[in-house]
Amino acid sequence: MADDTQAIKDEIALLEKNIAELQAQLKDAQARLEKKQWDAVDRTFDTKLSVDQQLALINTNLKEVLNPEIMESVLRKGEHLKIYWGTATTGRPHCGYFVPVLKIAQFLRAGCHVKILLADIHGFLDNLKAPIELVKYRAEYYRFVIIALLKAINVPINKLEFVLGSEFELKPDYMMDVLRLASITSEHDAKKAGAEVVKQTENAPLSGLIYPLMQALDEQYLDVDVQFGGLDQRKIFALAKEVLPKVGYKERCHLMNPMVPGLQGGKMSASDPDSKIDVLDTADAVRKKLKKAFAPPKQVEENGILSFVEYVLLPAGELRHGTPKFIVERRDAEPLVYTEIAQMHKDYLDDILTPQMLKPAVTEALVELLAPVQSEFQATPAWQEIEKKAYPPPPAPPKKEKKKKDKGTGYPGAKKVTAQPDGHVEGADKAVVDVGADGGAKAMEKLGLEEK
Amino acid sequence: MADDTQAIKDEIALLEKNIAELQAQLKDAQARLEKKQWDAVDRTFDTKLSVDQQLALINTNLKEVLNPEIMESVLRKGEHLKIYWGTATTGRPHCGYFVPVLKIAQFLRAGCHVKILLADIHGFLDNLKAPIELVKYRAEYYRFVIIALLKAINVPINKLEFVLGSEFELKPDYMMDVLRLASITSEHDAKKAGAEVVKQTENAPLSGLIYPLMQALDEQYLDVDVQFGGLDQRKIFALAKEVLPKVGYKERCHLMNPMVPGLQGGKMSASDPDSKIDVLDTADAVRKKLKKAFAPPKQVEENGILSFVEYVLLPAGELRHGTPKFIVERRDAEPLVYTEIAQMHKDYLDDILTPQMLKPAVTEALVELLAPVQSEFQATPAWQEIEKKAYPPPPAPPKKEKKKKDKGTGYPGAKKVTAQPDGHVEGADKAVVDVGADGGAKAMEKLGLEEK
Repeated sequence: MADDTQAIKDEIALLEKNIAELQAQLKDAQARLEKKQWDAVDRTFDTKLSVDQQLALINTNLKEVLNPEIMESVLRKGEHLKIYWGTATTGRPHCGYFVPVLKIAQFLRAGCHVKILLADIHGFLDNLKAPIELVKYRAEYYRFVIIALLKAINVPINKLEFVLGSEFELKPDYMMDVLRLASITSEHDAKKAGAEVVKQTENAPLSGLIYPLMQALDEQYLDVDVQFGGLDQRKIFALAKEVLPKVGYKERCHLMNPMVPGLQGGKMSASDPDSKIDVLDTADAVRKKLKKAFAPPKQVEENGILSFVEYVLLPAGELRHGTPKFIVERRDAEPLVYTEIAQMHKDYLDDILTPQMLKPAVTEALVELLAPVQSEFQATPAWQEIEKKAYPPPPAPPKKEKKKKDKGTGYPGAKKVTAQPDGHVEGADKAVVDVGADGGAKAMEKLGLEEK
Repeated sequence: MADDTQAIKDEIALLEKNIAELQAQLKDAQARLEKKQWDAVDRTFDTKLSVDQQLALINTNLKEVLNPEIMESVLRKGEHLKIYWGTATTGRPHCGYFVPVLKIAQFLRAGCHVKILLADIHGFLDNLKAPIELVKYRAEYYRFVIIALLKAINVPINKLEFVLGSEFELKPDYMMDVLRLASITSEHDAKKAGAEVVKQTENAPLSGLIYPLMQALDEQYLDVDVQFGGLDQRKIFALAKEVLPKVGYKERCHLMNPMVPGLQGGKMSASDPDSKIDVLDTADAVRKKLKKAFAPPKQVEENGILSFVEYVLLPAGELRHGTPKFIVERRDAEPLVYTEIAQMHKDYLDDILTPQMLKPAVTEALVELLAPVQSEFQATPAWQEIEKKAYPPPPAPPKKEKKKKDKGTGYPGAKKVTAQPDGHVEGADKAVVDVGADGGAKAMEKLGLEEK
């Protein structure tokens, strides 16, 4: 009896030893692969830009930079600057998505190594906007969209890397660090940090407080020099600056985009799908939606149409054609040609550039920008398939009473839910879709981790 | 170039495949080992007790039981009842520790499989009472103490299992489940659940809100039918009952001990070491401390001395000698012999049993109970060594100014900290000792996980 037990224990010890050896070999192989891939990047590295040119491109249109010296010192040493941008994979990306994507395009053009964190777990943590059953599909959908948007601006993406949050955020080291940070961060500070990012509700789930700690840690685990985000991320960035050094990690540089008003102006409502232009909207739909856009004459503040020119169309023009240029056709006069936003603002305030001229010009520029995105979607069945899974359509209307059929009316697995524009789901099977019904291992399968 | 990369990728895929195969074999071997160990338990299983006798022993002295039907159904099926008791490995265990240990002794005697969770991570989460550098030593210290206490009551420990929290609480499945629970538990409910267990401070760390979720999950990951704890755990138990079914896990039975007043009566102060009798105190120290104990005549409520007889000495007598018995010697009369607490209460209220008689009787009974614990400590150098590491003594007083030496004055690694009675540390190196300075992997090493 005791001998039997000892034999199994010996067997276990041997297996553990062999696994440890293979894991060491794996680690080594992964390191060699990473080096190879880096070497490949080196050969295509764009050396034409000076450090000052790189910095100018990186800093274009930013509202605020924390600790620029960290970024500058990396660039002046001639090293690749590693920048990460995280996007919680929740609702359907709309055209506002072009704003951060343009910055990413500039980072890439400046020779940076850009890591896009497809933050599936964060989508889940933020009030279940990315329910566990949909999370995997959402992340794939976002990847398709981001690549298509960058291609539309004609930017090389060989230095772009996508990382799934769930690939590293569930590992023991990371978990230990979440707990270490949770031990030195007060409830109050965690809540404050997420106030502008995490949905604030009456009876907020605890996950919203863990969210900012994980975002801070991601800087370390993604091994970057810089995190980029919108100005709404400022409090999370400040938390990261404060807490990472306390647990032995280095402080990062933070780049912030201004909060750019939506294309249709004013506050957009997440619950009204018509208030946003989806990146997959057809030309007709774009034209129809933009007709309703809010663009008061002689007002440049909170003017979403003008902002779209400033933060998307002008920089896109520069990346595509080497010079920022935006042309407004006029019926009875020469076209207005702009190469910088200041002149546009001046003309708009003076009513030389009227909303009636501006709107059609922006509409057609956007339609042109979206055309290759739409074409790629139409040519990519895999993307179409993922779209249906990621954003399940509403259940079909009930048939006649006597022939009621429940099957095949929705995704996934015909569960009865409908994705809302902000990403969360409603419907009879909401609870199961939200957190899953069978424990952490099953939930991880739904993240797609069973495929590793 | 591309070929090279592909070769490494193939190598990685092969390694991953081999690791997965070995891990499957490991899992199989572990399952076989567990079965063997279970079979071994079966052979020593005490079949003399009927189910009703088992239940009577399990329920002795409990204040409250939630869902007793879960426990009863397991016992009536003739299965081993699996019970877990978690103890956060923080401050030095004092004699109050005998109260839960007596229940564990009764569970073991009733044939239950008892799992003691040495909750190292929880000690860390609860306001850093178990700093990361000391956590590993604390858990080892607690294991020595618990075994010695059970031996002192003469209880077989072959069905007792110790589990370290950090062995499973950092794994991906578990982390995923923490996040799932955090997504469906409000900040408010998490805070309320921990209110009587986690230290409440003005600027409480977020870790205190994660603590109750992990305690709930431990029921699932330890694979038990029952969780046992003090009545102060009631809100965490209620949370576990509520949330586990929501994520697809079963509800457990909960057994609660009453809150037993400390041996020295009244509210004990965690910051005054003299207010508690350490399990390693010498007979002289015990006698000295108990002289100061609060035992007002004719008052049985909040009377720590009487409670110690009720919850420790009488049941210990039963476990050791087959019958509960407590004898009070009197100077000028026959000894008073008690076999149940009711008669003692009656005599005490009538002042037949005076504090002057009771105190020496309890003192000598406690000294007798502690004697084998003390002997085992003296005979076990490993325990002595761990004690010094787990509870670092205060730094030596500074030498003369000109010959200042900092080395060798404390543990661990001569960092300048002193452990306080509640388990947290004070001193110049507090921050480093608390959360560590080098990230999750290093912190895990400090938990002892590098030895696996």
